[in-house]
Amino acid sequence: MGNPQVDGKTIAVVGGGLIGASWAALFTTYGYDVALYEPAPAARDAIREKVDAAVASIRELSQHLAECGTLTLTETLEETVVGAAWVQENAPEKVPLKRELYSAIEAAAPADITIASSTSSLVWSELSAEMAEPSRLITAHPFNPPHLMPLVELYGPDRARVDAAAEFYRTVGRHPVRLKREAVGHIANRLSSALWREAVHMVAEDIADVEDIDAALVYGPGLRWSVVGAHMAYHLGGGAGGIGHYLEHLGPSQERRWKDLGNPSLDAATREKLVQGIASEARDRQIGELEAGRDAALIAVQKALEDRRL
Amino acid sequence: MGNPQVDGKTIAVVGGGLIGASWAALFTTYGYDVALYEPAPAARDAIREKVDAAVASIRELSQHLAECGTLTLTETLEETVVGAAWVQENAPEKVPLKRELYSAIEAAAPADITIASSTSSLVWSELSAEMAEPSRLITAHPFNPPHLMPLVELYGPDRARVDAAAEFYRTVGRHPVRLKREAVGHIANRLSSALWREAVHMVAEDIADVEDIDAALVYGPGLRWSVVGAHMAYHLGGGAGGIGHYLEHLGPSQERRWKDLGNPSLDAATREKLVQGIASEARDRQIGELEAGRDAALIAVQKALEDRRL
Repeated sequence: MGNPQVDGKTIAVVGGGLIGASWAALFTTYGYDVALYEPAPAARDAIREKVDAAVASIRELSQHLAECGTLTLTETLEETVVGAAWVQENAPEKVPLKRELYSAIEAAAPADITIASSTSSLVWSELSAEMAEPSRLITAHPFNPPHLMPLVELYGPDRARVDAAAEFYRTVGRHPVRLKREAVGHIANRLSSALWREAVHMVAEDIADVEDIDAALVYGPGLRWSVVGAHMAYHLGGGAGGIGHYLEHLGPSQERRWKDLGNPSLDAATREKLVQGIASEARDRQIGELEAGRDAALIAVQKALEDRRL
Repeated sequence: MGNPQVDGKTIAVVGGGLIGASWAALFTTYGYDVALYEPAPAARDAIREKVDAAVASIRELSQHLAECGTLTLTETLEETVVGAAWVQENAPEKVPLKRELYSAIEAAAPADITIASSTSSLVWSELSAEMAEPSRLITAHPFNPPHLMPLVELYGPDRARVDAAAEFYRTVGRHPVRLKREAVGHIANRLSSALWREAVHMVAEDIADVEDIDAALVYGPGLRWSVVGAHMAYHLGGGAGGIGHYLEHLGPSQERRWKDLGNPSLDAATREKLVQGIASEARDRQIGELEAGRDAALIAVQKALEDRRL
C-alpha cells in the first residue's frame, strides 16, 4: 500500500476491544495482513463480527479500496508480534498492564519496529518508563469511532520515528497530527473536555437545555469546525486584517469572556440534569440506532468534504 | 412562505454590514420583501453586491427555493419599519446606539411586532432597559457566516414571542435554539470561547502547533460535532449504559482533566505565535480564498447532512 517500511508485512494489533477491532478493520481494509491478540474469551469471540461491520463502513466511505488483507486471531502475544512490521497496542488503560506488555513485546518483536499505543488517557513518559528502549514507543491516539474518524494524534521523543509513523498512518487514510510535548488527553480530548466543561456549566446553571446546547453546537460551531479549525475561524472572523486584527481589537473581549466561563462539578444534581436532558434529546432512540445514524452521517460528511478540505 | 404572522409583509433589516446583508439575502431568498436601512454611505454602496453573493450561495445550498422577494434600500429608519412585520437589528455593538434605535423603532413600527437584535456580545437586559415595552425585544443571534449557518440563538422573557420567533426563523431555513436565561456569548460563542481558550493554551505552552491543533479539531471532534452534540457524544461514548454509565465511571477522570486545562493570556508572545501559526497554516492563501473554500465546504457538508441529521 505504498509504505516502504511495512509493505507486505503483518501489523500486530494487541487488544481486540472497540479500538483494537477498529484498527484491525482499518489495516485489513487498506490491504495489510493483521495478527490480532485478545486474551479475553468473550472479547475474542466478538471480534470478527465487529471487524466485519467496521470494514463495511470503511468500504462505504472509501470505495476505491481493493482486496482486504487477512485477519488472524493469534493464541499468544509472542506469535502476534514475532513477524510484525508495526505494533498497535490497545490494552486497557492501566499502566502496569501496558508496561508488562511492552516488555514482552520488546522481547519477541523485531528490534527496530515501532510500538504504537492507542492510549487515550495516559502519556508516553509513564508508559515507556520501564522499557529497554523507550524511544521505540510512541502514542498514536485515534478518535472514536476510530475506523471512521481520520484523526490520529502522535507523540514520541524520536522525531524520525514519529515522521515514519505519520507516513504509515497516511497509508491507511488517517490524518496524523503531532504533539511537540506530551499532554494528558493529547489535543482533541483536551479541546473536547474544555468545550464540554462549558456545556455542563450551562446545563447546571439552567442557561439552556441539553438538547438546545447540542443543537447550538451541531448547527453552529461544530458544523463550522468540520471545515475550519478554531484558530483559522478567528483568522476569517477578523476581516481583511485576519487574526492579527482580531487579536488586537477583540482579544481583550475574548479574555473577558474566558473569565465569565463556568467551572462546574459533576455532582448528583448536575448528573441527573444531564441524564434527563439526554433522554429528552434521544427521544425513544436506543444507542445502537443513534450510533448507526451517526456513522451514516459521518460517512456522508466525509464524502462531501473529499477534495474540498481547506 | 408559510409563516402566518409575517406572510406577505416586509421584513425591516436595520444595519447593512456583514450580518445585516446576510439576513437581507436570507429573507429575500426565502421570498420575503426586505426594507434595509444603512446610514453609512460606504456600507450602503456595498450592500447589493454582498447580498447578491450571499443569495447565490443560499440558492446553491437550497435549490428548491422559488422567486426572491424584493430588496429596498431605505433613506430613513422610520420608513424602514413603518410597514414592517419583523425588525432584525444589526447595528454596531454599542449599547447607547442600540437603545436609541429601539426607541425610534418603537415610535415608528406597528405596536405588536418583534424587534430582534442580532447582537453577539450584548445581552437582553442591558439592551431593553430603556424601552417603552421591553418584552418586544428579543435577541436572535446568527452564527458567522449567517447566510450559510443554520443556527439562531434566541432569548427573550416573553415565551410566546420567542415561540413565534422560532417559527419565523424556521421559515427561512434556520435552526433556532433557546436560552432559558440570558448569557454573555449566548450558547455557541461560549462553547467556542471555551474550546479556543484551551487551543491557545496549547500554542502558548508549545504542546502543539496552530496548524496541528486546527487539524486535530477538523479531523476529530469538529467533524464529529457536525453530526452529534457534545452531550450526545458522551452518551454514545458510554457504551450500552450511555451517559449514566459514562458519568459514573468516567465523570471523575473528566473532572480531573478539567483541572489540567489551561488558562492562557493573549500576551504579546502568544499573539505572535498565533499570527505565525496562522501564516503557516494559511500557506499563501489570502482570506478571500480561504473564505470561498470554507463556504463551498459548508454548502457541501450541509447538503450531505440533509435527511441524515440525528
